[in-house]
Amino acid sequence: MKKIMNDPATVVDETLAAFALVHSDLVRSDIAHRLCLRREPLPAGQVALISGGGSGHEPLHAGFVGDGMLAAAVLGDIFAAPSSDQVAAAATATDTGAGVLFIVKNYTGDKLNFRVATELLEDENVDARLVLVADDAAIPRADGGPGRRGTAATVFVEKIAGAAAAEGQKLDEVTELAQQVADAGRSLGFALTSCTTPMAGRPTFELADADVEFGVGIHGERGRTTQPLTTSAELADQVVDLLVEELQVEPGTSLLVFTNGFGATPATELYPFHGDVCAALEAHGFDCVRHLVGSYVTSLDMAGASVSLLPLDDELTRLWDAPVHTPTFTWS
Amino acid sequence: MKKIMNDPATVVDETLAAFALVHSDLVRSDIAHRLCLRREPLPAGQVALISGGGSGHEPLHAGFVGDGMLAAAVLGDIFAAPSSDQVAAAATATDTGAGVLFIVKNYTGDKLNFRVATELLEDENVDARLVLVADDAAIPRADGGPGRRGTAATVFVEKIAGAAAAEGQKLDEVTELAQQVADAGRSLGFALTSCTTPMAGRPTFELADADVEFGVGIHGERGRTTQPLTTSAELADQVVDLLVEELQVEPGTSLLVFTNGFGATPATELYPFHGDVCAALEAHGFDCVRHLVGSYVTSLDMAGASVSLLPLDDELTRLWDAPVHTPTFTWS
Repeated sequence: MKKIMNDPATVVDETLAAFALVHSDLVRSDIAHRLCLRREPLPAGQVALISGGGSGHEPLHAGFVGDGMLAAAVLGDIFAAPSSDQVAAAATATDTGAGVLFIVKNYTGDKLNFRVATELLEDENVDARLVLVADDAAIPRADGGPGRRGTAATVFVEKIAGAAAAEGQKLDEVTELAQQVADAGRSLGFALTSCTTPMAGRPTFELADADVEFGVGIHGERGRTTQPLTTSAELADQVVDLLVEELQVEPGTSLLVFTNGFGATPATELYPFHGDVCAALEAHGFDCVRHLVGSYVTSLDMAGASVSLLPLDDELTRLWDAPVHTPTFTWS
Repeated sequence: MKKIMNDPATVVDETLAAFALVHSDLVRSDIAHRLCLRREPLPAGQVALISGGGSGHEPLHAGFVGDGMLAAAVLGDIFAAPSSDQVAAAATATDTGAGVLFIVKNYTGDKLNFRVATELLEDENVDARLVLVADDAAIPRADGGPGRRGTAATVFVEKIAGAAAAEGQKLDEVTELAQQVADAGRSLGFALTSCTTPMAGRPTFELADADVEFGVGIHGERGRTTQPLTTSAELADQVVDLLVEELQVEPGTSLLVFTNGFGATPATELYPFHGDVCAALEAHGFDCVRHLVGSYVTSLDMAGASVSLLPLDDELTRLWDAPVHTPTFTWS
């Protein structure tokens, strides 16, 4: 294992401390609870959006804390869920009385601990709701298991629900909107290399030099198929064909297209691939009206990319475009 | 070689085309000349800042085109200088009559072609100046060669001179300021892996599993020493000791501290390392007042990091903090 590191046991705390130092204009840390919090309290009456999960996916979620997105991020160990006590602490630290919404990627540990937190918070009179994101089209719909994984479409939910909360929508409305976006977004990824966790110290999976893991998860879970690496355009066609089948929306629909790097993928690969993805979507008759390209939902040092799509109507477009000011996303 | 790619020969054009699509609110492309240009013309009378060089260092420089930074970026092939005709085309496309300033990293090909462009532009009555950035402290000062390489401190020059141009400073002033920042900034990097160029298809240099290349260049040039990989804190001490010796400024000086990832380095390595760098600088008596952490001056898929330092006075701090709106940096 080759990492710039002091000790696997302190990676998460060191990352959080330095992140809060660098972005002290926007966020502050609670190291004891491993929270990244807005620097200033939320305006009175604003719903608090909170997300979290295992570390190793940075900038998700701490990079999205600020105005117009999250009130707090709750950090677990690398690829491990945070505790329900941490989640509850994030809620009590940010609730204005308007309630909190937990945006949770669909993994067993995260789901359980965020759910327990909602129960703990009942005793403290905090109205806490939970929306699950399960966007990964690599998992067949009815496989009888824990269901689809939550991956990069989480960014859509956090941005759009965050804009709704910032403009004063109530907890019921924000929750319903977040669920609508979570239900509509779909993602699919592929890996060129495995990631290596600091604790394990060796690659999570083996992959031959000429192969790509198609349908990989954001923790290096094996995908649908191990297949030969082809061209960017052929990979884009394969990803788009599967996503279009999943979306079940009419040609002519406007789409938000997000090409995400897994951590070790340079811009000279991500941008050309994004161009191929958009060309494939346009060939299917879709209209790519909004774009996001970058390594925003990562798997440590994994090479590869995912594509997430969200059908847009005027209201979702307006909320996506609404001002945001966080360490990662800033527009006005 | 494992890359998401169609053809090594089209990587640069495909990247530029998709970049202009994604960031069409801020930039436009001239594919024939391989230019990334501001979407809107500069305000009348504003000096045009232009940078460029080999591709493979993204988001440098195209990601810095917009308000308060560059008017244009000129793209060469991967790790190869752009032609003087390309550079001249960027100048004639952006000059308002107030003149243009070329910010050039100190490599033989770049220096030559940007210099030839200034001569070509004389015939077109464009007043073109040139500032060389040669910040890499890995190269001994008097080695009789082409001098120090230009690396990540280029970001300081482009941001600070860009702010001065945006507030209406004249060409003489902007040039003097840019040279002052270029002379004051120092950088030092190390690699955990080599990069692989699309054309070569194999790593640029070999590095044993337990070794780090200390003093590496941003094209995978070998460094000062090949040495065993130690802890983040020990690497930070080594980098800081060398940079502090180079800076030759008094303890108590305020510093802008930039920890740059080379492309494949995750946030869980960059942020802890940045924390260690700042701790080492504080131990030397310096005051780390501004921070930048991210993969902004990359070497394709190389793993590793560099540290760049700039001593700040009130005026440089004001210009660093001044509003900027580009695909990569946005603050107000």
